[in-house]
Amino acid sequence: MPSENIILIPFKELKEMLLGILKKHGFSEIKAKKLAEVFSRSSLDGIYSHGVNRFSRFIHTVKMGYVEKDQEPTLIYSFGVMEQWNGNRAPGILNALSMMDRAIESAKRSGIGCIGLRNTNHWMRGGTYGWQAAEKGMIGICFTNTKPNMVPWGGSEVRIGNNPLIIAIPRKKGHVVLDMALSQFSFGKIQEYALKHQQLPFPGGLDEQGNLTRNPEIILKNEKTIPIGFWKGSGLSFVLDLLAALISGGDSSSTIAGFADEYGLSQVFVAIQPGFLTDQERDHLIDEAVNYVKTVSGFSEGEGTYYPGEKTRKTRDLNLKRGIPVNTDIWEEIKKL
Amino acid sequence: MPSENIILIPFKELKEMLLGILKKHGFSEIKAKKLAEVFSRSSLDGIYSHGVNRFSRFIHTVKMGYVEKDQEPTLIYSFGVMEQWNGNRAPGILNALSMMDRAIESAKRSGIGCIGLRNTNHWMRGGTYGWQAAEKGMIGICFTNTKPNMVPWGGSEVRIGNNPLIIAIPRKKGHVVLDMALSQFSFGKIQEYALKHQQLPFPGGLDEQGNLTRNPEIILKNEKTIPIGFWKGSGLSFVLDLLAALISGGDSSSTIAGFADEYGLSQVFVAIQPGFLTDQERDHLIDEAVNYVKTVSGFSEGEGTYYPGEKTRKTRDLNLKRGIPVNTDIWEEIKKL
Repeated sequence: MPSENIILIPFKELKEMLLGILKKHGFSEIKAKKLAEVFSRSSLDGIYSHGVNRFSRFIHTVKMGYVEKDQEPTLIYSFGVMEQWNGNRAPGILNALSMMDRAIESAKRSGIGCIGLRNTNHWMRGGTYGWQAAEKGMIGICFTNTKPNMVPWGGSEVRIGNNPLIIAIPRKKGHVVLDMALSQFSFGKIQEYALKHQQLPFPGGLDEQGNLTRNPEIILKNEKTIPIGFWKGSGLSFVLDLLAALISGGDSSSTIAGFADEYGLSQVFVAIQPGFLTDQERDHLIDEAVNYVKTVSGFSEGEGTYYPGEKTRKTRDLNLKRGIPVNTDIWEEIKKL
Repeated sequence: MPSENIILIPFKELKEMLLGILKKHGFSEIKAKKLAEVFSRSSLDGIYSHGVNRFSRFIHTVKMGYVEKDQEPTLIYSFGVMEQWNGNRAPGILNALSMMDRAIESAKRSGIGCIGLRNTNHWMRGGTYGWQAAEKGMIGICFTNTKPNMVPWGGSEVRIGNNPLIIAIPRKKGHVVLDMALSQFSFGKIQEYALKHQQLPFPGGLDEQGNLTRNPEIILKNEKTIPIGFWKGSGLSFVLDLLAALISGGDSSSTIAGFADEYGLSQVFVAIQPGFLTDQERDHLIDEAVNYVKTVSGFSEGEGTYYPGEKTRKTRDLNLKRGIPVNTDIWEEIKKL
C-alpha cells in the first residue's frame, strides 16, 4: 500500500463505519456486525485487498443480487464427519464462518469435521477461517475454487482458478497460518509493480504470444496469470477445484466460468484435532520447527525468514496501535455508500 | 531417462527378480511380494527414480539397519476418525500401504479416515498410496516430511523438506492423481539437465552466493534446491511438515535433520468419501473439468495440457506392452544384490 493518500483509521471506528453501511443496505444487526468485523479485521491484519478495499465491491454484489443478504446456508446431506451444505448464495463470509464452526464442533466429537459448501459467494480473505479454527485450538484447513484466472501449464488461455488454500495450526506463541492463492502473484501485487513501473521479480503471467513475462502492465491487460511452480501449481489448482466441487456437490471452475460474475463457488472447510500431543508438547514441537527455520543464514538479497502468520501478527499489532491505513479515495467511496 | 544403455524388462520378470532379492535378504514371502510389486509398479508407471532405480539403495538401508525388515506398525492412540501409529522403522512402503488401508476402512464407516504415522521410513513413490485409495473409489490425500533439502524463502541454507503431497480422485475414465514434491525440480530432473549440459528452464536452486541459479551442476554441488513458488512453496512445506509431525506425534524435519540418514519420518494418510454425488454424477463433473482444461489453446512452446495422472497411465500402458526401460548399469547392480 503506497504511503501517499493514506489516512489511519482506528479499528473500532472502521468497524462502526462499515456496520452502519451494512445496516443501511438492509443487513440485520447480527449479520452486519459479523461482516463489519471480518472486513475490518482483514485490513487490521494487513490484508487490505480483501478487507476495506473490497468493501464497495461487496456492496455492489449485494445490490446486483449476486449475494443474497437474507439467505442462510442449508444442510443437504451428512455422513459420519462429512456434511454437504448449500450456501444459497448468502454472503460468503457468513457462510464460511458458520461452516468452519460446524467443522470445529465435529472435530471436537470425532477428531475431524469436513464440510463441503456449494453455491456460496466470495469469502474475501480465506485466512479468516484458518485463524477462526486456530483460536479454538484446532487445525483448520480450507480452500475455495474461483472463476478461472490462471493459465494451466501447457495452455495459453485462462482455465483454472487461483483457488486459495489455508492451513492453520494453533500455537500459544502465535498461530501458524498459511493463506495463499496458487497464483505466483496476486493481481493486487501486480498492480503495485505496475504503479511503480517496475518489472516483477519473477514471471507472473503470459504475454500476447503466450510467453512468460515479468511485465506487470501486460499481465494486467491480458489477465493471464500463472500458477506457483508452473506445472506443479497448475496440477494443484486443478485437484483443489475438483475436491471442492465433489465434496460440496457444487460447481467446478469450468462451470463457474460461464456465470455473469464470480458467484456460486464451491468450498471445503476442515477442522482437525491437533494430534495426540499435550498442549505443551505441541507448542514445543512447533517452537523447535519455527526456530530451526528462523535461525537460517540470511538470503543475500533478503530480510530473513518468517513463519506463515508471523508478519500478519506484526501488522495487526502495529495497526491496532497506529490505526489502519486506508487509501483516501477508497475511504471517500465507502463514505458515499 | 536417456535412451542409451537401456534394456526393456517385462513387468512380471522385473517383479520376480526383485522378489527373489528381497527374499534372499530375509523378507518374508508376503512382505517381499508387496515390496516387489510397488517397486516394479513405480517403474512401470514411469517413476523410475523411486522404482527400480532406488531399489539398491533400499536394500542398503535394510543392511544398515535404518529399515527394520521384521517390524510392523503399532497403533498408539485413536480418537474418532483419527489414529496415531508408530511405524517402528518398518519398510516405509509396507507401513504406508497398511495406513492407507486403515484410512480407507475408516472412510467407509465415517466419511473420512486420517492416520498419522510416525517413526517410519521413506515411502518411495508417494503416488502409490494415492492410486491405492482411488482404486478403492476413495479420495486419497497423503504427505510425508523429509530431511531438509530445500532453502526456505529468505534463507540461504537448507532447512525445509520437499515434503511430497499426493491428492488422488477416483474416476472411471482414469483417476486424477497429483503426486508432487514441493521442490521446483527433483534432483533426478536436475541430474538429467546436468548430463545434457543444459541450463534448467527456471531457477532450481541457489549458488554459493545465495543467488538463484538455473545451472544444474551448481545446484547438484550445493544441494540447495528451492520450493515451487519461492515464498509460497516455502510456507506450504513448513506447514505440511508441522501437520505430519503433529498428527503423527512424530518428528519434524528440524529433528530429522540430525539423524544419520533419512529415516524416522512423519506421514499423514487421509481417505475421504468422494462426496455425495452418484458415481455417474461424479464422473460427469470430473470429465467436464478435464475437458475444459484440455481444450485450451496450446502454449507457444508446449505440447498441450495434461490432467494429473494422465501421463502416468500412458506410460503404464506403453511399458506394459514394450517392457520397462531400465538402465543397464542399474540392472547389473541389482543382479548382484
